Order: sequence, then structure tokens, then C-alpha cells
Amino acid sequence: MPQLRKDPIIGRWVIIATERAKRPTDYCFPGAAEKGELNESCPFCEGNESMTPHELYASRKKGTRPDKSGWLVRGIPSISPFLSMQGDLDRHGKGIYDLMNGVGAHEIIVATPEHDTGTYVKNLTRIEKLTEVLVRRIKELKKDERLKYALIFKNHGEVAGGSNLQHQHLQLIATPVTPLRVKEELVGSRQYYEYKDRCIFCDIIRQELQEKQRVFLDIDGFIAMNPYCSRFPFETWILPKKHSCDFYKIGRSEIKNYSKIFQLTIKKLTSVLGNFPYNAILHTAPFRRRKKRGYWETIEADYHWHIEIMPRLTQVAGFEWGSGFYINPVPPEEACRYLKEAKETLEKKSCGKAKD
Amino acid sequence: MPQLRKDPIIGRWVIIATERAKRPTDYCFPGAAEKGELNESCPFCEGNESMTPHELYASRKKGTRPDKSGWLVRGIPSISPFLSMQGDLDRHGKGIYDLMNGVGAHEIIVATPEHDTGTYVKNLTRIEKLTEVLVRRIKELKKDERLKYALIFKNHGEVAGGSNLQHQHLQLIATPVTPLRVKEELVGSRQYYEYKDRCIFCDIIRQELQEKQRVFLDIDGFIAMNPYCSRFPFETWILPKKHSCDFYKIGRSEIKNYSKIFQLTIKKLTSVLGNFPYNAILHTAPFRRRKKRGYWETIEADYHWHIEIMPRLTQVAGFEWGSGFYINPVPPEEACRYLKEAKETLEKKSCGKAKD
Repeated sequence: MPQLRKDPIIGRWVIIATERAKRPTDYCFPGAAEKGELNESCPFCEGNESMTPHELYASRKKGTRPDKSGWLVRGIPSISPFLSMQGDLDRHGKGIYDLMNGVGAHEIIVATPEHDTGTYVKNLTRIEKLTEVLVRRIKELKKDERLKYALIFKNHGEVAGGSNLQHQHLQLIATPVTPLRVKEELVGSRQYYEYKDRCIFCDIIRQELQEKQRVFLDIDGFIAMNPYCSRFPFETWILPKKHSCDFYKIGRSEIKNYSKIFQLTIKKLTSVLGNFPYNAILHTAPFRRRKKRGYWETIEADYHWHIEIMPRLTQVAGFEWGSGFYINPVPPEEACRYLKEAKETLEKKSCGKAKD
Repeated sequence: MPQLRKDPIIGRWVIIATERAKRPTDYCFPGAAEKGELNESCPFCEGNESMTPHELYASRKKGTRPDKSGWLVRGIPSISPFLSMQGDLDRHGKGIYDLMNGVGAHEIIVATPEHDTGTYVKNLTRIEKLTEVLVRRIKELKKDERLKYALIFKNHGEVAGGSNLQHQHLQLIATPVTPLRVKEELVGSRQYYEYKDRCIFCDIIRQELQEKQRVFLDIDGFIAMNPYCSRFPFETWILPKKHSCDFYKIGRSEIKNYSKIFQLTIKKLTSVLGNFPYNAILHTAPFRRRKKRGYWETIEADYHWHIEIMPRLTQVAGFEWGSGFYINPVPPEEACRYLKEAKETLEKKSCGKAKD
């Protein structure tokens, strides 16, 4: 019998088709064309800095200058931004409708100087540098009174909406409003907190660690798990075990531990799924300034930052648009069993060699 | 300056990139391989009824028998259903989590006996027959006390999650819960009603008919419009002008008028976009039984059934998953301008011949 499971955070129902479960080899992706060297025509490669808009920030070797070689991580404005940092919000109504100017930032964070699709994950120091740059950038954007949220995400592979540029990069969108998906989560966490006086994410972590069915990594204060109500096959969340609503407040030693579990998670997923397309998103609390307003009073107690990694293995999006329902053919317990056993390697498992 | 627009119903913000507006010819799709005849290997073609599960309902010529030739519209159970009509809901909790059995219906409604990708839209009587069948089926499912919602949708084209079967068909999913997207809309309409004592959809229709910027068809009690807060290029809604929350209460003469505007809408969209992939969804109120509960008291006053047609012209889904934001490069006013001028034809406009 298939199950309908209710996401405890935002109330979304997901159908888990337990009986028609697919094995990960049904989804195994061939490797992308990888190049270890630099690429002459790629604007994100070291040496090609003049092909991009001026650098906004970077993690650089000492003595090197902006827009020149010598960087490990580099932040630049998007070449085709859909938000602009100029001007005021100018919120107003028009009859029944509300609107404001599209003020905000749209930035590209190049994760590695090499054109290789995997380098930044191979090298732990690179992930740490990248995380440090993200933390610094969020702190910087937070000072802009017009902005309410900084959304950091990565679209990997064309299916996942990734651009044609194979060079590994993340995107950052800072907006004057909180994205609906984040807001839904905030509202859900708030309701739970009001009822229980506890953080829902902390409660989930506690139950998952007891049940041992969906957590595949539990190291140095972080866990990686396949959520109970996974919308996608092999959906994976990484959460700090210590309660914290703001990603940017992560400490130096935590950055090391977070980078480690992130690397191991991608390695395990790659070992099972090959070079799979995915969307990864950082979920963190909105910027807060007006301390006294009800909305902000408990956010530090009721929200909990985390990373969501959503492999795009099925044409599920089309169906979801059509039906309003997510249909996930791989129960998270099944995905977790594969990931627990998976080797931590960036070598792709050869397709077609199923375990059972 | 781009705009952020707030959807008045569910509170979702959409970025409208007014300056980088694309013209519809940038998206023009080549025609799909069309076949006017029947197809030997297609289970949905007339004469191949034995290739499907037993027929549940149909619109048939007099004297013809179920599972034989002689039908115009035919409803069958899905070959790979992810919900089952057997068993009880068995709602229960498991620690923090809630679940229930996946009780429900998953049906295929074959829209035409011919294998032609366009036939059912070409023929007005066919659309009327299809609509009549849908109405009858919803009324039938409504009697099942376990069910709360009947979701009817069409995924057209592979990009939109449509199956490989080119033969025109719709899907019906009946569930014991209300899908989140519908619920969000219900909650939004309720809040508006509580504040204004008016239906938000009625207010939208009134304002749109005054502004004349986003309505491209206004005939016989129905309008077709590109909503103010369109998430997708050429997103189109069809609404009855007369307030009604339940699609299945549509009268006989209304079925004729609805079928006519539906046909004209698809013709106009096809004339501009070619054989475009899309998701179309019927949004109607959930089944109601317990009259006294607060949730049901005002639904007849505050909700308004409608059809949403979402062309899938951009890889927007990937970005939306990644960012939580929809980015629509075609302002609805622009889309509407094209659709107002578009001929009502099912011939595809030849790609590359831009108007300006």
C-alpha cells in the first residue's frame, strides 16, 4: 500500500510509492565531459577575469589583485541580472495588486579557478574557503536596509536549470522580500513552536537519530539525512545538531565540520547516482532588524538553518506542476540504506551494476 | 526597472523582468509528429480498447458496449496508479510525523478516439463531451466519503511531464487530502473575504475588465486572461464571470460557452507559440460534507473555480526549485497584446517570422 505522508513543517502531502520503489541504478548518470585544465573560452576560468563584470569579493592569495589571477573563490555580478541594486523599493498598490521595484542583488560565486566539474568538492580546503566567502558576503549584504533575504543555491546540470557554463558556480539572490518557500517553512516552524515550545527541526533530528532509518551521516555536530517526507528520490538535508537559525553565525571550527559532511554527502550521492543533476539550497533565517515586532521575536528559537539537496532524477517537476502533488518513487528509508553503504568517493559507480 | 509583483491570492512574489522581455517567436515550437489516423500500437486509440484496463466511464454512441469501439471520450484506471481505491485511510502519527494510506483514484481520460494530437481541440462538440464527462465523474467521486479532492489536469508535451503517449488525454487524481497548492489558494481567498467580504477572484475580474490590459477574450460569461502575477510566460487563466466555487455545478449552456472559450484560448496560444508544451489544471473547491465546520462555512462565497494553463517555455522550473522565486521574462501585458492580435487557428505560426 502506498503512503501519503504529511510534511510536518509546511503541511505538504507527499505520496510515497513504497511498492514501486526504483533502485538508484535506474537513474545512474554517465559522467559529464570533465576537463582538469583551464578553458580558453570560459569566463569563470582563472586568467579569463577580464571576460566578467568587475569582481565584488574573492578569496585570494596574498599579494594578488582583484580581477587578476590568484583566487580560489570569486564573486561577480550576474551578467544578466534580473534584480538591480539601484533605486528605492517604492512599494505601492494598484487596485487589488501590490508591487515594488525589483531591487536586489544577483551574484555568481565561482567555486573554483579550474574548469573541472568536480574540483571544488575533491578538495576540502576549497569547500571551507567557499563557505567562508558565503558567510562574509551574507554579513555584508545584511547591512543593506532594503534587503530581507539572501538566497544561496546551486543548480547542477542542465536538467536542474543549470546554465550551459559547466564551470562550478553558485548563485546568490538577495531580495527585499522573503521567498514564499522560506516563508512557508518559517510559518510552519512558528506554529509548531507556539504549540510545543520546541524547535521542530531539533525534534526531527532527535527522532531521526533514535530511529536510525533516514540518517546516513552523523559526524562532528552535523547530520546528513533523507527527510521523512522527501519530495524527490534521494532528497538530502544537512543540518547542524546544535540549534541555530542563522547560517552566517557559524563558527570557524563549525565551518570545518560542515565542509567535511558536505563533501562526504556529495561523495556518497555521486557514488550511488553518478554525476547527477541537482538543486542545492541554503535555508537560513531572514535578516532581522526590528527586534520588537512579533514576527521576529521567536525566530531565533523556532527556526533552524539547513541545506537541502534535491536530485533531479525524474521528470517529477512536470507532474508536480500538473497535479500539485509530488510523487516520489524512492522511499527515503531505501535511499538512506544505499547511502549508508555507499563508498565516499567521487568516482562514479558504473551504471547497470545493481547491488541486488 | 524590473518589478516584484505580489500574487494577491497566495502571497507569492514574482519578478517581472520588464526590460529583458522576450518575444514569443523566441519560444516558437515546431509541430509534433501528428497522425490523423488510428495507431496500431497506441492503447488509447479506438479499436485498441483491449490494451487498457476495463473502462470506468465513457461518452458513447448509442448501442455501443463498454471496452469496444464507438466512444468519443473514455475514462480508464491508470496503468501505473500511485493511489489505490482499496482500503481505509488509517490516519495515524509516528512521533513527530503524520501519515495515512494512499487511498484515492488515478484515472486517465482519453479525450479523443483518434491518435491526432489536435483533434479534440479542433472539434467544439468534442470539448463539450469531454467537459460533460468530467462533470459527471466529479459528481460520482464526490459520493466517496474518503475523498476530499478531485484534481483534473493535462500535461502536454514531454517537457511538461507528459508521458510518451502522444494520444491526447487528461489525468484525474482523487485524494483524501487537499493538495497544498489548492489549499494555499483557499486560505488566501478566505483571508481576503474575511477582510473585504468579497470574493478575490470576482474583484480581480472586475479590475481586469476595467484595465483591459491582461484580458484577451471576454465572451458569453467567461474571460481568458494573463494574470497580473504570471509565473510563466503566457500563463493563462480562464474564469467564469459569474461567481461559483464548484466546477461541477456548471450548467448545460455554460458548458457550451466554456468549451468555446477554451477552444479559442488554445487556438490563440497555438497561433502564437506553435505546438507548445503546457500544464493545464482545473482549480475547483474541495468536496464538502460537514456543513457546520468553520472551514466550509464560507467556501461557497470566497472561492471561484478556474482553469490555469501554464506553458512550459523556459527551464524556469529548475530555477524556481533552486531559488524559490519564479522569474518570468514575458510581462503578462505583453503576452496579452500578442494574444489579442493572434488569429484563432490551430495552424502553427511559422517559427522565426517575428512581427517586429
